[in-house]
Amino acid sequence: MAKAINTEQNYIAGNWVKGKGKEFWSYNPATAEKGKVYIEGDQEQVNTAVEQAAIAFETVKKKSTAERATLLESMAEELEALGDELIKVCDMETGLGEARLTGERARTCGQLRAFSALVKQGHWQQARIDTAIPDRKPLPKPDIRRIFRPMGTIAVFSASNFPLAFSTLGGDTASAIAAGNCVVVKAHPSHPGTSKLCAEAMQRAILKNNYPPEMFSMVQGVSPEVSQALVQHPQLKAVGFTGSTHVGRILFDLGASRPNPIPVFAEMGSTNPMIILPLAIANNGVEIAKGLANSITLGTGQFCTKPGLILILKDKNSPEFVGNLKNALESISIGHFLNARIHSSFQKDVAKTATVAGIEMVSTKDEGGKLFEIDAEHFLQSPNLEDEIFGPVAILINCDTINQLNKIVETFGGHLTGTIFADGDSELSSVKDSLEDKVGRLIFNGYPTGVEVCPSMHHGGPYPSSTFPATTSVGTAAIERFCTVKCYQNIPEELLPIALQNKNLDRILRMVNGVYTTEDI
Amino acid sequence: MAKAINTEQNYIAGNWVKGKGKEFWSYNPATAEKGKVYIEGDQEQVNTAVEQAAIAFETVKKKSTAERATLLESMAEELEALGDELIKVCDMETGLGEARLTGERARTCGQLRAFSALVKQGHWQQARIDTAIPDRKPLPKPDIRRIFRPMGTIAVFSASNFPLAFSTLGGDTASAIAAGNCVVVKAHPSHPGTSKLCAEAMQRAILKNNYPPEMFSMVQGVSPEVSQALVQHPQLKAVGFTGSTHVGRILFDLGASRPNPIPVFAEMGSTNPMIILPLAIANNGVEIAKGLANSITLGTGQFCTKPGLILILKDKNSPEFVGNLKNALESISIGHFLNARIHSSFQKDVAKTATVAGIEMVSTKDEGGKLFEIDAEHFLQSPNLEDEIFGPVAILINCDTINQLNKIVETFGGHLTGTIFADGDSELSSVKDSLEDKVGRLIFNGYPTGVEVCPSMHHGGPYPSSTFPATTSVGTAAIERFCTVKCYQNIPEELLPIALQNKNLDRILRMVNGVYTTEDI
Repeated sequence: MAKAINTEQNYIAGNWVKGKGKEFWSYNPATAEKGKVYIEGDQEQVNTAVEQAAIAFETVKKKSTAERATLLESMAEELEALGDELIKVCDMETGLGEARLTGERARTCGQLRAFSALVKQGHWQQARIDTAIPDRKPLPKPDIRRIFRPMGTIAVFSASNFPLAFSTLGGDTASAIAAGNCVVVKAHPSHPGTSKLCAEAMQRAILKNNYPPEMFSMVQGVSPEVSQALVQHPQLKAVGFTGSTHVGRILFDLGASRPNPIPVFAEMGSTNPMIILPLAIANNGVEIAKGLANSITLGTGQFCTKPGLILILKDKNSPEFVGNLKNALESISIGHFLNARIHSSFQKDVAKTATVAGIEMVSTKDEGGKLFEIDAEHFLQSPNLEDEIFGPVAILINCDTINQLNKIVETFGGHLTGTIFADGDSELSSVKDSLEDKVGRLIFNGYPTGVEVCPSMHHGGPYPSSTFPATTSVGTAAIERFCTVKCYQNIPEELLPIALQNKNLDRILRMVNGVYTTEDI
Repeated sequence: MAKAINTEQNYIAGNWVKGKGKEFWSYNPATAEKGKVYIEGDQEQVNTAVEQAAIAFETVKKKSTAERATLLESMAEELEALGDELIKVCDMETGLGEARLTGERARTCGQLRAFSALVKQGHWQQARIDTAIPDRKPLPKPDIRRIFRPMGTIAVFSASNFPLAFSTLGGDTASAIAAGNCVVVKAHPSHPGTSKLCAEAMQRAILKNNYPPEMFSMVQGVSPEVSQALVQHPQLKAVGFTGSTHVGRILFDLGASRPNPIPVFAEMGSTNPMIILPLAIANNGVEIAKGLANSITLGTGQFCTKPGLILILKDKNSPEFVGNLKNALESISIGHFLNARIHSSFQKDVAKTATVAGIEMVSTKDEGGKLFEIDAEHFLQSPNLEDEIFGPVAILINCDTINQLNKIVETFGGHLTGTIFADGDSELSSVKDSLEDKVGRLIFNGYPTGVEVCPSMHHGGPYPSSTFPATTSVGTAAIERFCTVKCYQNIPEELLPIALQNKNLDRILRMVNGVYTTEDI
């Protein structure tokens, strides 16, 4: 297997090559120093990646689900086999620390194995069969069968804040491969060395399983032109993206405005409103303040599920709650920002927020998490306060009445999550009704950070938190984004996908004449 | 119940009102004469429709699935109760004839009842439950539950060629209502009187079932401004459209470029390539020619599934097959075109096609179905020949070799259907491979016209045949287009949708901890 030498940092259609685009540097958040020099790919290299993947797809799409499952398992194994080097390089590039990164690697491998199990089980293909009724009047009924099939080549944009779990071999790549597709990764410039190691692991997994090497590419990219070339390539079929609303919308627009439009599944910014009702504060205020402060500062607040808007009802207990939250926040040492740009954006956004009419900065510690306090009337006059500030900051909104609180919720755009704390509060039902429509995941008496990887998880939400609110980027349902549907009418059995043949070899759940069954036809 | 008087032709949020837009006329295709004058709605009326529907949605979304099922059943009953008047008015506006329209009404009511049954059965909600593991290490696992929920207000654009089945109470309206949404119909100007009658039926069904009248509106519209106002309304959540690629793409772009983008599910033009292999021609050529001629001319060729491109391999039998097809076509009396615009477009497109280098018009009968013949080399030099011509016409392509035939297929964009006739031909497998990626539904030894309404049907395909190839506008899977996903974490049971509560009251199929079951938790 060809191993990359130092300047060969782009993995294009089975070859490690030197980028032909711009130079950029990795950055060590812990020391605030520049690291290694990298060279991004150029449009020609992107084109090669997509074109070769499209050719490889002809082979990839014929692989059995068992072969696909084994490839995913190998991806997890090869990622683990990178050992300490991966954690070391990744920590140098992200400053996230060994404990978090070891956990994130375990999650990433867990995701790959969850998709491996899913693919083997086969229910996800949503196979449906309606058998023929040749003597039906007035017209005979044909035999019709329908199933999820892979799309072709998928672009995956890595995220800065999850260098493993939402990057080169992260959830989007795992789900796209699980569905039977080829993948071109646009690596995040915040962790180019991590991306290179992960792509090497992928290269090994591909060779071990006799898949065509061209099925996977990893392009380093810091210039918008690289992303643009990728999303606009005529042979690309879909995009998975995790990042800011600003960039996500640019990519979505590029995908939608192509001669042949493609979906850009963008999971974007979110401020994750949290409503804490009076009895919850009265009975558990101290504990909630601590938990909330942890949730705001976890990962230096660089999570898309960080709670950024806290709504409470003013009463005799609320000032103490705000004080507890301030103290809890000030007692937490926050970590590094992922890169210099995120750090300076955070400082700028916080400074700008501090100038909003009626707002007060509650927390005073220079390098700690930030808490702002504002009353409902002033909040309603400052619509930009709903925008995500990426980093350890939250805005607490004091409401006079539950109606005022619900009125604020009604002004909200879409968010990935919404949380309600209640402890027998009579307002719970009305608050739940108003918040439910604005979020993808509704949480009760808990914290939105921490996204369980399971079949029921939905990590998406109304725009602008995602571009396709009915899809998720976390959990096994994520596979559905990268599937298309094929339907077969009176097709000879030997030409049908195995999952649609009469004999239900893998005992997958199929809808046969409207009834779910694992039986043969 | 308020019944519309003559000039009240728009049904806006529960009221029959006079349109405030432009005047237009219905048209009788049989006599080529103008019918009655109609006035379309204006932007303000569209706004009222969407805004009132958004308010009604707060009531509609709380209706039980049983109530939704009964509403759909009533819609079918009230449509049937319109009796002969509906068929008479519809025939005057479309020239489709009593037999076809009676059949189409039966299909439309069948669709409504199929969705009624689906809603009651409940599996379509794709309920998933992962129960909590409080003592899991390192972190407790929360209780997470996920389900399909309605989106809000959906716009449905009626189609000219199916005045009942793809119009006011057609498949898109049925599936949107089944999913629990409100609907605003943009009526097709080809059949305004039919639309009015159907909206009256809907009004009765709504009142009978105690649904809010504002949940449904029907706007007459002939100007692009009406469609534009509807698709751009900030409170609209999705669009269902059936029609031309040109208009479908305009609406898709409007939806995608909104401040908050929404999906425009457009089922658009398609030329439905058909490959007839040599042994099929040798053994069944006469029969296939007859069936194909019927399929080309059915409904005056005004079906989105009309086969418009026929690929054959030149051999000793092929000239006779072309002759048989010509004779079969010339023996069929074609019906009326739906309107004057479609008729003149057809004539213009046919005349333009006749000027393509190397093409020959085989059929000679003035008012019959049209057949063109061209060889593969010339076809490859004329890319526009793949575009849909709406009406009774097909282009037959003579190929020298199977490689040349497959090469042509590889140049194709997306189509709703693709058909292969074979009778032991060794080329079947390679042809199936090349055609499969280009179409939504692959048919063997049959005709693409006639779209079965069943769970396995897929009426969609790669762009430009549809904007979302993984979705269908026919069959029960159509409901998924108009659903969004909600996820609940640790939510008190009484606040959960019934389908997610521990007791599985309706015995719907749910995925519980990764396993499908109809049991209680």
